[in-house]
Amino acid sequence: MSVNLIDVKDLDAIAIGAALYGTGGGGDPHIGKLLAQRAIRAHGPARLITLDELRDDDLIISVAMIGAPTVMLERLAETAPLVLALRQLEAKLGRKAAALFSGEVGGMNSVIPFSVAAELGLPLVDGDTMGRAFPKLDMTLCALHGIDAAPLALADEKGNGLVLDTVDVQSLEGMVRALTMEMGGSCYSALYSMTVAQARKSLVLGSISMTQRTGKALFEARERHLDPVAELVRVTDGHCLFKGKVIDLQRTIDGRWSKGLARITGLDEHRGEDVELLYQNEFLVARSEERILASTPDLICTVDMETGEPITAEQVRYGLRVAVLGLPCVPEWRTPAAIARVGPRAFGYDLDYRPVEQLTMDRR
Amino acid sequence: MSVNLIDVKDLDAIAIGAALYGTGGGGDPHIGKLLAQRAIRAHGPARLITLDELRDDDLIISVAMIGAPTVMLERLAETAPLVLALRQLEAKLGRKAAALFSGEVGGMNSVIPFSVAAELGLPLVDGDTMGRAFPKLDMTLCALHGIDAAPLALADEKGNGLVLDTVDVQSLEGMVRALTMEMGGSCYSALYSMTVAQARKSLVLGSISMTQRTGKALFEARERHLDPVAELVRVTDGHCLFKGKVIDLQRTIDGRWSKGLARITGLDEHRGEDVELLYQNEFLVARSEERILASTPDLICTVDMETGEPITAEQVRYGLRVAVLGLPCVPEWRTPAAIARVGPRAFGYDLDYRPVEQLTMDRR
Repeated sequence: MSVNLIDVKDLDAIAIGAALYGTGGGGDPHIGKLLAQRAIRAHGPARLITLDELRDDDLIISVAMIGAPTVMLERLAETAPLVLALRQLEAKLGRKAAALFSGEVGGMNSVIPFSVAAELGLPLVDGDTMGRAFPKLDMTLCALHGIDAAPLALADEKGNGLVLDTVDVQSLEGMVRALTMEMGGSCYSALYSMTVAQARKSLVLGSISMTQRTGKALFEARERHLDPVAELVRVTDGHCLFKGKVIDLQRTIDGRWSKGLARITGLDEHRGEDVELLYQNEFLVARSEERILASTPDLICTVDMETGEPITAEQVRYGLRVAVLGLPCVPEWRTPAAIARVGPRAFGYDLDYRPVEQLTMDRR
Repeated sequence: MSVNLIDVKDLDAIAIGAALYGTGGGGDPHIGKLLAQRAIRAHGPARLITLDELRDDDLIISVAMIGAPTVMLERLAETAPLVLALRQLEAKLGRKAAALFSGEVGGMNSVIPFSVAAELGLPLVDGDTMGRAFPKLDMTLCALHGIDAAPLALADEKGNGLVLDTVDVQSLEGMVRALTMEMGGSCYSALYSMTVAQARKSLVLGSISMTQRTGKALFEARERHLDPVAELVRVTDGHCLFKGKVIDLQRTIDGRWSKGLARITGLDEHRGEDVELLYQNEFLVARSEERILASTPDLICTVDMETGEPITAEQVRYGLRVAVLGLPCVPEWRTPAAIARVGPRAFGYDLDYRPVEQLTMDRR
């Protein structure tokens, strides 16, 4: 079936899956989930569809929150400014969106669009621009395919709105950063407008239902008293890279960036080894003194060792016992052009990317 | 005649008049003049018209540079980004402008619109939003009449553009300030869109031809070896408040604001008295220890004592011999509501406004 009706309970699964794929960043999906659930209670289920439900020249648009996750957590998200941003972008384009989609499968922005979809009765495409979450506007497979985030609309809770029509992503990033700061650290956006024909080539399709399957598997593991971490590894085709206890934490906020590292000391079979997780909004590198365990664009996820509950970089704190999972990114991120854009060196880390499954194999 | 063809030479007069009415701020009109003269050489004279040449429901739009005068002086102004801002605003409104107008009669923005008018073959309305220059977007008679600066388009030399659609002027000021800084300290704008019917009630009409008459009078005084300062006083219905030598100067740049004071020690009949000119982009208060000579919204202008050449706050330097002129503002600025918006207290000066002609009378 190509239409998947997403009800309040389905969002619980999607949100917990999105928290995992958020690789520590993207903001806690909990707030976005509450917002979407409220809209679904008021307007009925959201329709998650495949691109086959649309015509090739239909327009689709992503809606998202932009800003530092820490700030987003402190503000109550609203649907109205997302609708305002969407309307401003539609007016700019002179066309209405036939469907919405999520910019990323990780974090808050995976679930936020469901609130707008439910409220406006628009379907949501089962797909996203990266199959994970990255912090910059051009760190998407769409951008690699020449589809820009701009024109990009921003709005705030007061009813202010604007549309940016920029010529390069540096200008766009700079203006969005300046405006986000001015708007109080976070704001609401509509972006990445494209036709369905463009979406076929550039979106990661099926990624939202993947988060739903992952969340469901976690809930079932808990119900059936299976090891949640093992079940997450199974359903994601991932690897358990490390288990340990958080012993140190360094965190700074720099503009709309949250940066830092978490240090974890090994437990069980990892006793005696310390691992550092380096993050810039998302976890980007997992390393010990001896070796690299995984690096961007592969996904580095932390979950509670006992419950499998995903833990964002914001939630990491001293004493937490965590499992670090490594999930292979989608193959499109592993080309030289993609690695140049989102590999370790793109974030300032002096190391070469190697696929997480190779790194894990080497270790055995 | 209601159409006044503005050629290269006419702009010399307008620019020097605009420098006077700029009351020390608004940026040196020289750069704007060169830009407009280049456009006129390429495309023919600009048409300065009265509102009678237009229909009541015609749309008119102002184009302007926004930013710190110091920064504007260091960048070569261009017409293309003004056209881009205009086009973005027109697209937002879904209507083309039938004519342009100048936001202020003081400084660079009095002459900048001539470049766009000449290039696009659009007429320019003989009027502005304030009959002088003020630094904030809502310090206009239009704003007092409920006509907003927003929707407001911004653009830069790279080709980036955006349209702000804000709900209050605080939001607009904040976003424009943040974006202006991000765009390098100055940028190009289209704003204050209104119908001709609205313009009839809220624009200061005839103010551009007034700057032209003032500039011509100064040129003629020089040719005929008359006292230029006396001629300026005569043609502007103004007052010569003080003559002296600049002995001190304090200047800071704070965001897109240039703030400071100039201290002048009296010459001739003013010997023995020191006067301070306080400015925030424009000269706002002229005072000595004993008395207030003039204050906003009346116009405080400095000119070279010998040549009558207007001197901006940026050009004031130690040793200059200047005459300080006080020009009555338009009567609309003297209502209690207007004084609340642009009187001394609106700029943080703890003094009551009194009309410059009364202050001058008291002294005699």
